[in-house]
Amino acid sequence: MNAFGRLFKVAVFGESHGETVGITIDGCPAGLLIDNHLLSEYLEKRKGGQRGTTPRKEDDIPRFISGVFNEKTTGAPITILFDNKNTRSKDYEKQRAIPRPGHADFVANKKFGGFEDYRGGGHFSARLTVGIVAAGAIAKQLLQKIDIKANIIEIAGENDLEKGLQKAIDQKDTVGGIIECRVKNIPIGLGEPFFDSVESVLAHALFAIPAVKGVEFGNGFQAARLFGSDNNDSIINENGTTKSNNAGGVNGGITNGNELVFRIAIKPASSTPKEQESLNWESNEIEKFSIKGRHDLCVALRAPVIVEAMTAIVLCDFLLLEQKIGRVV
Amino acid sequence: MNAFGRLFKVAVFGESHGETVGITIDGCPAGLLIDNHLLSEYLEKRKGGQRGTTPRKEDDIPRFISGVFNEKTTGAPITILFDNKNTRSKDYEKQRAIPRPGHADFVANKKFGGFEDYRGGGHFSARLTVGIVAAGAIAKQLLQKIDIKANIIEIAGENDLEKGLQKAIDQKDTVGGIIECRVKNIPIGLGEPFFDSVESVLAHALFAIPAVKGVEFGNGFQAARLFGSDNNDSIINENGTTKSNNAGGVNGGITNGNELVFRIAIKPASSTPKEQESLNWESNEIEKFSIKGRHDLCVALRAPVIVEAMTAIVLCDFLLLEQKIGRVV
Amino acid sequence: MNAFGRLFKVAVFGESHGETVGITIDGCPAGLLIDNHLLSEYLEKRKGGQRGTTPRKEDDIPRFISGVFNEKTTGAPITILFDNKNTRSKDYEKQRAIPRPGHADFVANKKFGGFEDYRGGGHFSARLTVGIVAAGAIAKQLLQKIDIKANIIEIAGENDLEKGLQKAIDQKDTVGGIIECRVKNIPIGLGEPFFDSVESVLAHALFAIPAVKGVEFGNGFQAARLFGSDNNDSIINENGTTKSNNAGGVNGGITNGNELVFRIAIKPASSTPKEQESLNWESNEIEKFSIKGRHDLCVALRAPVIVEAMTAIVLCDFLLLEQKIGRVV
Amino acid sequence: MNAFGRLFKVAVFGESHGETVGITIDGCPAGLLIDNHLLSEYLEKRKGGQRGTTPRKEDDIPRFISGVFNEKTTGAPITILFDNKNTRSKDYEKQRAIPRPGHADFVANKKFGGFEDYRGGGHFSARLTVGIVAAGAIAKQLLQKIDIKANIIEIAGENDLEKGLQKAIDQKDTVGGIIECRVKNIPIGLGEPFFDSVESVLAHALFAIPAVKGVEFGNGFQAARLFGSDNNDSIINENGTTKSNNAGGVNGGITNGNELVFRIAIKPASSTPKEQESLNWESNEIEKFSIKGRHDLCVALRAPVIVEAMTAIVLCDFLLLEQKIGRVV
Repeated sequence: MNAFGRLFKVAVFGESHGETVGITIDGCPAGLLIDNHLLSEYLEKRKGGQRGTTPRKEDDIPRFISGVFNEKTTGAPITILFDNKNTRSKDYEKQRAIPRPGHADFVANKKFGGFEDYRGGGHFSARLTVGIVAAGAIAKQLLQKIDIKANIIEIAGENDLEKGLQKAIDQKDTVGGIIECRVKNIPIGLGEPFFDSVESVLAHALFAIPAVKGVEFGNGFQAARLFGSDNNDSIINENGTTKSNNAGGVNGGITNGNELVFRIAIKPASSTPKEQESLNWESNEIEKFSIKGRHDLCVALRAPVIVEAMTAIVLCDFLLLEQKIGRVV
Repeated sequence: MNAFGRLFKVAVFGESHGETVGITIDGCPAGLLIDNHLLSEYLEKRKGGQRGTTPRKEDDIPRFISGVFNEKTTGAPITILFDNKNTRSKDYEKQRAIPRPGHADFVANKKFGGFEDYRGGGHFSARLTVGIVAAGAIAKQLLQKIDIKANIIEIAGENDLEKGLQKAIDQKDTVGGIIECRVKNIPIGLGEPFFDSVESVLAHALFAIPAVKGVEFGNGFQAARLFGSDNNDSIINENGTTKSNNAGGVNGGITNGNELVFRIAIKPASSTPKEQESLNWESNEIEKFSIKGRHDLCVALRAPVIVEAMTAIVLCDFLLLEQKIGRVV
Repeated sequence: MNAFGRLFKVAVFGESHGETVGITIDGCPAGLLIDNHLLSEYLEKRKGGQRGTTPRKEDDIPRFISGVFNEKTTGAPITILFDNKNTRSKDYEKQRAIPRPGHADFVANKKFGGFEDYRGGGHFSARLTVGIVAAGAIAKQLLQKIDIKANIIEIAGENDLEKGLQKAIDQKDTVGGIIECRVKNIPIGLGEPFFDSVESVLAHALFAIPAVKGVEFGNGFQAARLFGSDNNDSIINENGTTKSNNAGGVNGGITNGNELVFRIAIKPASSTPKEQESLNWESNEIEKFSIKGRHDLCVALRAPVIVEAMTAIVLCDFLLLEQKIGRVV
Repeated sequence: MNAFGRLFKVAVFGESHGETVGITIDGCPAGLLIDNHLLSEYLEKRKGGQRGTTPRKEDDIPRFISGVFNEKTTGAPITILFDNKNTRSKDYEKQRAIPRPGHADFVANKKFGGFEDYRGGGHFSARLTVGIVAAGAIAKQLLQKIDIKANIIEIAGENDLEKGLQKAIDQKDTVGGIIECRVKNIPIGLGEPFFDSVESVLAHALFAIPAVKGVEFGNGFQAARLFGSDNNDSIINENGTTKSNNAGGVNGGITNGNELVFRIAIKPASSTPKEQESLNWESNEIEKFSIKGRHDLCVALRAPVIVEAMTAIVLCDFLLLEQKIGRVV
């Protein structure tokens, strides 16, 4: 449940305000020299800091406690920890009486009988994605010439990202965005019928990222509005290159060697500075309240590297399954 | 790979022009009296026949060869077979030289080294969904008061479905559509952090349906264009009822008891009657050709029951996991 | 639950007196020409017929209904059916009131709420192993020079097998036996730490064979009585050849390239012709009774090929995992 | 691979001489108050210290870094770490040239291309079982009245354990032993046909314990030498109580409510103080050598609690599957 993958398997653990969050990678090929530069770069991209992101700062120094020996992977499970230092749980204690709209507070309470760690969203926090990003950086090293690039293509409905962000700042409200991810140099044949189409497995992983509400491949929802003769991609050579790429590089759930293209909808963060109304569990009355804590005005800003990481993890698994990566590199 | 589910597990097999396609359900609770009426109704809905669907007719009589005794499930795996009678493989032999654009022909050939059964798309055919529909009918019986309803809300970009369909007929081309699925009376708490959010698992299953190119929950892609204060759903009572339902009934990947709402984009079928151009593998030249065989002008017409079936299967699995359904009914 | 394997996955279904039993193999590499001769030979070895085995005769003609095209595997799931023709359920109806000692009758009834198919043991019957043997014959083809040979080394405590069998015939009682399996030319490195040691996975599969009550590797239980210096196997060359083979070809759960050796204890079949005593559920009294039906005096006689088949299936999975077998052969 | 279990899932990580070893439990029901007393007791039993066990001493203080809040489980993954303090890797550096007979040194090197952490056996070390024992203590709390008790019944072939141990001390050699485990008050119906018989799953887990070379249930190998009429257990009442318990509480792979009984063979530890001969990889010559490092003369002494822990973990999983334990306790 908290693990994903068949051969390159990641498992996350930890809570937003616990001592530590982390990830275990099981099945990583042996002999990989960890690229600390790439790892730092990935973790840095995910961090808050720029305009529109949370003022909560964490060092995010990865601590490898297993699976690496002499800086290389050993073939044994790799566990990476990240300390939580900059927590202010007090903000959340006050909030406890009112389950925050859009958050998991209410459902977590019901599902886990009130025993959930509610501080900062607990195990449901986007803090967990730090481990995903670290694992993604390692996965990326294994992908060799495959090139994954995710970009924000829309914020608050605007293609001009600055303009979208300014809307949030002006309105003192959170905004969402759309991320587009493009993968070049991907081999033909990744994806497994019937249930493990590359779209199925990617969507599974992508919808695990907090705030994702939609995933589409190639023309996506727009394809539903085209004629077949317009949407089909003619094959123009024996490598399977197509004239157009409306399918986004996937036919029958299998990569066709053309660029893999998909988009992800990120909703506006639920923790808006705006005053809201919701039920107070203790008084059983509808109350006005404002969320305290340090939050992002636009979580989408930090999402591209998470999307890239998740994609690298999924592709790594498919490449191992298809034996394009060996058990020792 | 051809199996899906953790506790209520379905596994499909068969090819479009093979002798038989089928499904095995492992983990179905014992003691369920198979509702043959419901089963027929489901299978009937999936069949071609109405305007805009394939003239290929199959009886689709389910043959239970295991797991049912005295008309009730036994707790052992249930295997259901459907004979393929109305196959015309000759149509496909002629097509063999030109991998059909939009189809799996090219990727299947590369992935399976040329050993794939290419007749009618082989194992990649939508024919496989007949088993899904049968398993879905059984799953539906286990859901009790949970009510799943999928509807076409758009064909060829038109909300008036007749108008959309007429476009296809007029243009002699295939068209796509959008399906919306709504699930009422769903309990709070389905879905598992981190990777098995209800969105993740549903999307995984839904993207396995041939021709699906997008999945979104609640406001979906539109959520990315709203402010957080507009997109949040205020909780208005202790049952978790929300004032609005922009989240589509899911918070933090867990059902919140409100209506579960999602939409699926179905691309226009690749087998359009229109003349197309693509590579001929044998001559290594780009050729004009028309696809023979009997095909749907609008596959979306047959999709709602498949979406309902897939949803029932996924929910059944979550309900078993959450112990809302017992091992014996 | 009824499926086993990670990459080469088998799933069984069917009941002793149902219409059909079968198996689905998911993940079999594409391009394998099915060796019908080997398949028949395997199925023939499993059949009753010789002295000491059941007079129930089944043709055991395998029907491939998917996954094979032009006699070769396609990469899609292979489903193989076997009809049950020679059933005499009447024998079992009479027996119904008294759950047979040593059989699953009692536990199946409790576990599945009385909905189990009880005829001939239903889904718990050794009849299910016919599918295992067929899948094993296919797996064996993939193993190339790896040679698996299982032999009975003891019947009824006697090394002279005829003598052991004669004991059964003289006593009109069932007897058990011990099977030893030896695998030559096995590569170094099969098995995965920590939980998927080659011993763990083989034992898992072997204990699924009805009547197996013990599994040991190399010196097995006898190793517990030796000194370490006597039980250790000195490595004598760079290929890892050891002077002795007390470990049975496994160190740390991983094959070491020496012969893999293990033994399986098969209990005497529970369906003895001897009069027995047990509870009559209907009268709630202890009753004397004799089991009707056609049964083996020594099930161990038919077990070697089942052990070989199960071993081939497990090794095939490990070889795919270790990328010693490709996805296309 | 390093994870085990379907609903109550444990995953181990770490190396003998790494910084830390640990375990993650995914799927533990929420609301369980961790019994630190029981946990300490379990960990203490596993530790070296008494006559015949390793002089390496570790504090084995469990550090819970996730999944526990206000001393209770939250439903999120529980990660428990144990620091390795008392490591003396120098001993192993010297040994590196000669792969130790009976150890994983040789196979780990071949399997992981020489990148394995070889210090103290690395990931193959019995040090990993500390996590298993901690998880087992938690699992045990969930089992309520089910009572698991493992005992050494034989050391070095002697039923008098002191005598067996004295043999080891006198001979300055390692010795093995046999553990018997008995589980009382187990419900009827645990175990899943066909492949997840209770024997299959238990054996899978038990063979993952280092040094285990055999597993048998009930009469085990001795059953192969009995007549069916002697080996069958007559049912004497409606609860399924049997007159004898030759089956060890399992019929058809399912628990029958009688005492579950099984035995495990533990080989003598490979690291004997005795001088041995083996290949020196560097010189490519057979050499005499003695193993340095701090080792157990009789690892079986520390095994009972590991067997109990593994059994508790397996039963917990089956109980969740059978819905005898809820998701919240």
